[in-house]
Amino acid sequence: MHIDSHEPLTVLEPSCVLDAHRRIKAHINETPILKSEQLNDFLGHEIFFKYEGQQKVGAFKARGALNALLSLKEQGKAPKEVVAFSSGNHSQAVAWASQQIGAQAIICVPSEISKVKLQATKAYGAKVLIADNRQEAEEQVKEFIDRGAYFLHPYDNDHVIAGQGTACYEALSAGIKADAIFATCGGGGWVSGSYLAAQLLRPEAKVFAAEPLNANDAAQSIRNGTIYKFEKSPETIADGARTLYVAERTFQYLQKMDGIYEASEDEIIYWTQWLSHLLKAVVEPTSATSMAAACKWLKEQSTKQTVLIMLSGGNIGTEKQQVIWQKDYLEQIPCLN
Amino acid sequence: MHIDSHEPLTVLEPSCVLDAHRRIKAHINETPILKSEQLNDFLGHEIFFKYEGQQKVGAFKARGALNALLSLKEQGKAPKEVVAFSSGNHSQAVAWASQQIGAQAIICVPSEISKVKLQATKAYGAKVLIADNRQEAEEQVKEFIDRGAYFLHPYDNDHVIAGQGTACYEALSAGIKADAIFATCGGGGWVSGSYLAAQLLRPEAKVFAAEPLNANDAAQSIRNGTIYKFEKSPETIADGARTLYVAERTFQYLQKMDGIYEASEDEIIYWTQWLSHLLKAVVEPTSATSMAAACKWLKEQSTKQTVLIMLSGGNIGTEKQQVIWQKDYLEQIPCLN
Repeated sequence: MHIDSHEPLTVLEPSCVLDAHRRIKAHINETPILKSEQLNDFLGHEIFFKYEGQQKVGAFKARGALNALLSLKEQGKAPKEVVAFSSGNHSQAVAWASQQIGAQAIICVPSEISKVKLQATKAYGAKVLIADNRQEAEEQVKEFIDRGAYFLHPYDNDHVIAGQGTACYEALSAGIKADAIFATCGGGGWVSGSYLAAQLLRPEAKVFAAEPLNANDAAQSIRNGTIYKFEKSPETIADGARTLYVAERTFQYLQKMDGIYEASEDEIIYWTQWLSHLLKAVVEPTSATSMAAACKWLKEQSTKQTVLIMLSGGNIGTEKQQVIWQKDYLEQIPCLN
Repeated sequence: MHIDSHEPLTVLEPSCVLDAHRRIKAHINETPILKSEQLNDFLGHEIFFKYEGQQKVGAFKARGALNALLSLKEQGKAPKEVVAFSSGNHSQAVAWASQQIGAQAIICVPSEISKVKLQATKAYGAKVLIADNRQEAEEQVKEFIDRGAYFLHPYDNDHVIAGQGTACYEALSAGIKADAIFATCGGGGWVSGSYLAAQLLRPEAKVFAAEPLNANDAAQSIRNGTIYKFEKSPETIADGARTLYVAERTFQYLQKMDGIYEASEDEIIYWTQWLSHLLKAVVEPTSATSMAAACKWLKEQSTKQTVLIMLSGGNIGTEKQQVIWQKDYLEQIPCLN
């Protein structure tokens, strides 16, 4: 999305995640923490998974969107209309969060949106406008902004970042003594929020971003010290990480983290199969990217580690399922050697 | 399996499920009860899912196997060796349960067992004997029985039936006011145990068995009043229901239930896709058979109903995933009309 958020650039205090959690906790699900004894035996480490597939709308995006809208409401600035552009989890999250505060959501989507996502977005009471192309969608969004609708950016927004951090906050509050935390980077809101939660509750933990190698704008940005922008959406099975570039806002946190790992498409599909098999949960390839990253880090460790993997969600369409299960990766038992 | 259990034929008191639960509860997972607001909106009824994918070994089978072995131990008859014949969830359950009581499990499996299932069974400490064909496997089992091993039948065993009933017992204890309960029938242990649990805690609930139309030996048996036997394993995606015939032991309960519904392969795959999509859980086609059955019953109801669906487990190999996701059923939103 090329529409800027126009929010002032600030650096958040870690405590903003606590504020966000207080604000949204009555509305959201406290999602389960999953683990697999078999996986821990395979790898020789202890791995916990915070599973946002069981969140409202099936992904962590509900947290950030709701925190942003409830914050506006607290300030007496509750919008009547909320507009967003997305064909992914953000569209459903904005629809759902708008419904929570009694606002009308307007979601501008590209024409290739699947029927099942369209149906879900409409089920949360959103008006859905299907554009022929990105330019047309952007013009639609701008029209709504001009007439007073609040534009809810998927990651270039402080309250969204703080809200996304509440998932990691819940996991750490539950007592996970993580040595390292991994979260996938699309626009960077999810991993930035997780970083803030770690600063608040477990500053000794390392925090790593994970990214598909095919969509490694954040990794390139960190290496070069300046934001790298893709001109068109990169091709990867991890569709939540197909963002063109991170925001200045999220880049500040990405630069402070302990590193970023890039995962190949094969590695992502391998872990999508294995995590689904071991955890018995529907795991988006975007989520599995973090597990692939964690393995790269674990290979470098000489002592037993406790790892927290942030699984972003569980929304997968049929076409993607076909790609995931094309080849049998379950024949290759996971190991780090 | 053509080896009889040689256990005397008795009719269990419903309270045996309570005894089983007391016996096994420290060892097993209290599995989650899932629901989908979207599904309830689609169908106009309230549906709860007891999800045994999160059980030890990924299926309810852990309950019955452990109850049988702990009962023997209580009677001072703990076996040193436990033998079973299965390529499915029962093999892993017997391996796991034997490990809990410190016995050696010997699992005789057909040659077509998948590497991942083989690996899991071995990981629970079992000796796995791979036979060339069914006859050879049966001879192997008999040899072990002759030398004193305890043969743990997957369903023709009172303690197994009582153990399987503990899942429904947990769901009803959690306060689900079910008007109807559905469980899939393979050999009949799962649905018979659920029937006993319902008699104990919610006798007003109707209890229905569900079966693939392609493997409808139980439905034919109920219609004819005598056990119908397939000569070879019927072809169905619901592999947990490919049993050749029910036991006299389970047939007694099947005849007392409120009915049995048969589901086509299309209906089973449809609900495997939709339940996985809505619940974000890995749902075996065998489990989805019960949801297909429930829809047939719900179509006949004129008032809003509360339904409990017993989801047996979440173990699916890659080949089966490919069959499940071949066609896009998510484009057809569920409805009862």
